[in-house]
Amino acid sequence: MVDVSDKPVSARRATAEATVKMDQETLTLVIDGVGAKGDVLSVAELAGIMAAKRTAELIPLCHPLPLTEISVEITPDRKVGTLVITASTATTAQTGVEMEAMTAASVAALTVYDMVKSADRFVTITGVRLLEKTGGKSGHWKRPAPKEVEAAAEVKPTKAAARSVKRARAPKKG
Amino acid sequence: MVDVSDKPVSARRATAEATVKMDQETLTLVIDGVGAKGDVLSVAELAGIMAAKRTAELIPLCHPLPLTEISVEITPDRKVGTLVITASTATTAQTGVEMEAMTAASVAALTVYDMVKSADRFVTITGVRLLEKTGGKSGHWKRPAPKEVEAAAEVKPTKAAARSVKRARAPKKG
Amino acid sequence: MVDVSDKPVSARRATAEATVKMDQETLTLVIDGVGAKGDVLSVAELAGIMAAKRTAELIPLCHPLPLTEISVEITPDRKVGTLVITASTATTAQTGVEMEAMTAASVAALTVYDMVKSADRFVTITGVRLLEKTGGKSGHWKRPAPKEVEAAAEVKPTKAAARSVKRARAPKKG
Amino acid sequence: MVDVSDKPVSARRATAEATVKMDQETLTLVIDGVGAKGDVLSVAELAGIMAAKRTAELIPLCHPLPLTEISVEITPDRKVGTLVITASTATTAQTGVEMEAMTAASVAALTVYDMVKSADRFVTITGVRLLEKTGGKSGHWKRPAPKEVEAAAEVKPTKAAARSVKRARAPKKG
Amino acid sequence: MVDVSDKPVSARRATAEATVKMDQETLTLVIDGVGAKGDVLSVAELAGIMAAKRTAELIPLCHPLPLTEISVEITPDRKVGTLVITASTATTAQTGVEMEAMTAASVAALTVYDMVKSADRFVTITGVRLLEKTGGKSGHWKRPAPKEVEAAAEVKPTKAAARSVKRARAPKKG
Amino acid sequence: MVDVSDKPVSARRATAEATVKMDQETLTLVIDGVGAKGDVLSVAELAGIMAAKRTAELIPLCHPLPLTEISVEITPDRKVGTLVITASTATTAQTGVEMEAMTAASVAALTVYDMVKSADRFVTITGVRLLEKTGGKSGHWKRPAPKEVEAAAEVKPTKAAARSVKRARAPKKG
Repeated sequence: MVDVSDKPVSARRATAEATVKMDQETLTLVIDGVGAKGDVLSVAELAGIMAAKRTAELIPLCHPLPLTEISVEITPDRKVGTLVITASTATTAQTGVEMEAMTAASVAALTVYDMVKSADRFVTITGVRLLEKTGGKSGHWKRPAPKEVEAAAEVKPTKAAARSVKRARAPKKG
Repeated sequence: MVDVSDKPVSARRATAEATVKMDQETLTLVIDGVGAKGDVLSVAELAGIMAAKRTAELIPLCHPLPLTEISVEITPDRKVGTLVITASTATTAQTGVEMEAMTAASVAALTVYDMVKSADRFVTITGVRLLEKTGGKSGHWKRPAPKEVEAAAEVKPTKAAARSVKRARAPKKG
Repeated sequence: MVDVSDKPVSARRATAEATVKMDQETLTLVIDGVGAKGDVLSVAELAGIMAAKRTAELIPLCHPLPLTEISVEITPDRKVGTLVITASTATTAQTGVEMEAMTAASVAALTVYDMVKSADRFVTITGVRLLEKTGGKSGHWKRPAPKEVEAAAEVKPTKAAARSVKRARAPKKG
Repeated sequence: MVDVSDKPVSARRATAEATVKMDQETLTLVIDGVGAKGDVLSVAELAGIMAAKRTAELIPLCHPLPLTEISVEITPDRKVGTLVITASTATTAQTGVEMEAMTAASVAALTVYDMVKSADRFVTITGVRLLEKTGGKSGHWKRPAPKEVEAAAEVKPTKAAARSVKRARAPKKG
Repeated sequence: MVDVSDKPVSARRATAEATVKMDQETLTLVIDGVGAKGDVLSVAELAGIMAAKRTAELIPLCHPLPLTEISVEITPDRKVGTLVITASTATTAQTGVEMEAMTAASVAALTVYDMVKSADRFVTITGVRLLEKTGGKSGHWKRPAPKEVEAAAEVKPTKAAARSVKRARAPKKG
Repeated sequence: MVDVSDKPVSARRATAEATVKMDQETLTLVIDGVGAKGDVLSVAELAGIMAAKRTAELIPLCHPLPLTEISVEITPDRKVGTLVITASTATTAQTGVEMEAMTAASVAALTVYDMVKSADRFVTITGVRLLEKTGGKSGHWKRPAPKEVEAAAEVKPTKAAARSVKRARAPKKG
């Protein structure tokens, strides 16, 4: 685990996204088949919120953090046959909450899968990725719009980034 | 939770897959930068194995199952800039282990992300999906090769599948 | 923990109940204020289901059991200002699932409390009790209707019951 | 989960209560049948303390908090055939510890039930409720003595309280 | 994780031991300083029982098992200044419960340490080891008395044992 | 649980040690038999890191703490047939991280045992003990070199230490 003992405490936020792809018929069942309580979307949102709180148990080198906010929202898009899951997390701590947002989005997506898998085993989770983060030494970062990604990819990562992978790779150093 | 009390016990297996996309430079660091202990791939594989055991805690309507096997294997593909994670699970029980395989693959992928994110925030998890399952009433199912998927999609799901989504959607019925 | 190694495996079910009392205005908000997703009742039902799976972690001398069913249902009664929570659990095992049902009902009730406490700190959880159990050596037991309880109380417990308390009290004997 | 990121950190305490009702003979066994180690009361007190630390895992929209104190005390009352469980919790954080105290009291009560249920299935948990809280914007609150409760009920909740239920009800907003 | 899917189910038991060494004065406090409830020994015994149930969460390649018995007993020996902790576990499953017994003994010992550390930081846990196991293909094994250990060590391990270490070392093969 | 609500927050570190004894042949397998991924030592180190984060769940009267560093390092000593495990932890909090370091060392040792037990059931964990701590009211403490221990033992513990055992023994006081 990276030693963050000497890093300053700062307010931090992160937003991540996951997309669940399914065919139109399955999507229609998910969207329209809402009973009085306990529909797919609200169960998945709650599962994402609860999973965020357990990130440090799941991801071996993650620091345990006192989260001050977790929200998960799922938006269906009938045209392309997807559910887009957005998860946001916040804390005031010595390290960031990207993994908490990524974990919330992933587990919400897995929960959607669990609830429709008997109808459609072809459902696929895709595009699990960080959208934005604020706070900490590296400050504000936002994923560029699709076009910009290609350009950014050409100039990245720098040597500084390469060095930090080396640090990240050595769990036994703490 | 679906009531499986009256279902027969049978041997069940499942295999799922997740793909982590990153640029060439990050991938090279992951593959070549292996120290004596604790490289990215082995940490991620172990995280996937441990997460499979906690599936029922994460996925609200999953049954707790005594797993008899969990394996996670990560294969880098330098040409396309990906790590392909394959997770397999087994049990002898009244319900299947698809979610355990899906969860293992997802958490292994999240762990890779965690260990390279300081170098490359553009890393994306994609293609989290079931590859194969055996056992239970529905028997053997295998994801068709890419071409076949389209054809399969045209004839699927049947009305029987639609009905089972309705059942899956009602958590409060157990 | 009581040693159940030599007990036969049998199908077992249990049902427990908890009642949440609140004033009319709070109850109206709970019942009518249901948004598209994530209302109090469905969050509490899901919390109860998830808690049942963790009973053996919470109750020190409970055996871990592979549950085959958990259901939680909440019924509001406007006249008396209550929500009645009913939790049912099932397994096929060497010991019973009463504690799983009791835990599910309790945690669902606590979740209701959590979601209305900012409006009404007087909300009280009451009547957490077993309603019925089947399976195992003691077979079928059902809580008598209110009148019968008094009569039953007069003749109970027998010396056999007293002895079993003594056993239950000795955690270090296993 | 309510976003508490911008709330000030303050010292907070809460006390909750649960009552376990049982017949005289069972209560006598609980009180007098104490062996050298591991009696019902100390097992239940410890279970309550340990459960308080897991509140955020059990209650979906609870924030994880670094607790600085948890105490659980059980007082038998032979005359009325009850065990009264009192749980107190403290933290220095952006949100309160009422749910931790409520959870500790509930799980201690469930543990008592677990340890006497083979002797007496009629045991009932009742009166799970908040007694007092300090800290935070709302400051000190104390449950009035029985007579005062009725009077308080007549004037409560205000419209402000009704609004806050609406906020509490929307988990997906974070 | 070793694939045990095709192994037969059998009754299995294991016993492990841990010894906590402390000076006479600390030991006297532990033994004699027992209040009405919650002495060091009973808290440690309970901690051991609860930890056994979580073995598969702690030990990465352990299979989750439905334990049918866990007992932990602590015996003080004033003459040599030790507490000897004995933990026994049982299940009916496809793999053994040695790790559950070892984990119970270890966590009970850690709990003793936690409760006396403010008085004596020199307390040391020693002799954490398996005493006996039954069931499974390898059948009954019992640690020989001290003299016999040396003789046994001379002829052990055979090549078969060496091979099984190689298998145990490869977590990614499942 | 000891009430630390009024203690000042300070930077704290602790280091603990555990030793795993095995015969030469087993040790050789552990050291030399390292495959491309997932050798015994790196699995055990990771298990120790992950266990440290769960200390408060395992040790009943431990406070939950936001750890800022955990590192586990295993050093084989071929001459004496041992693996020496060193675990270090850090936090900025109102109470110390000794138990987190002790737990990390213990669980790493148990994991080593789990991975070699099929080859050698005589493996023993010994010398689980605190090496050093800093921070808090008691400040810096370091275990003296072997010779010094005896001398230190003669003058320790004082009456102040005896009193603090009495406090530590009373879990129900919080």
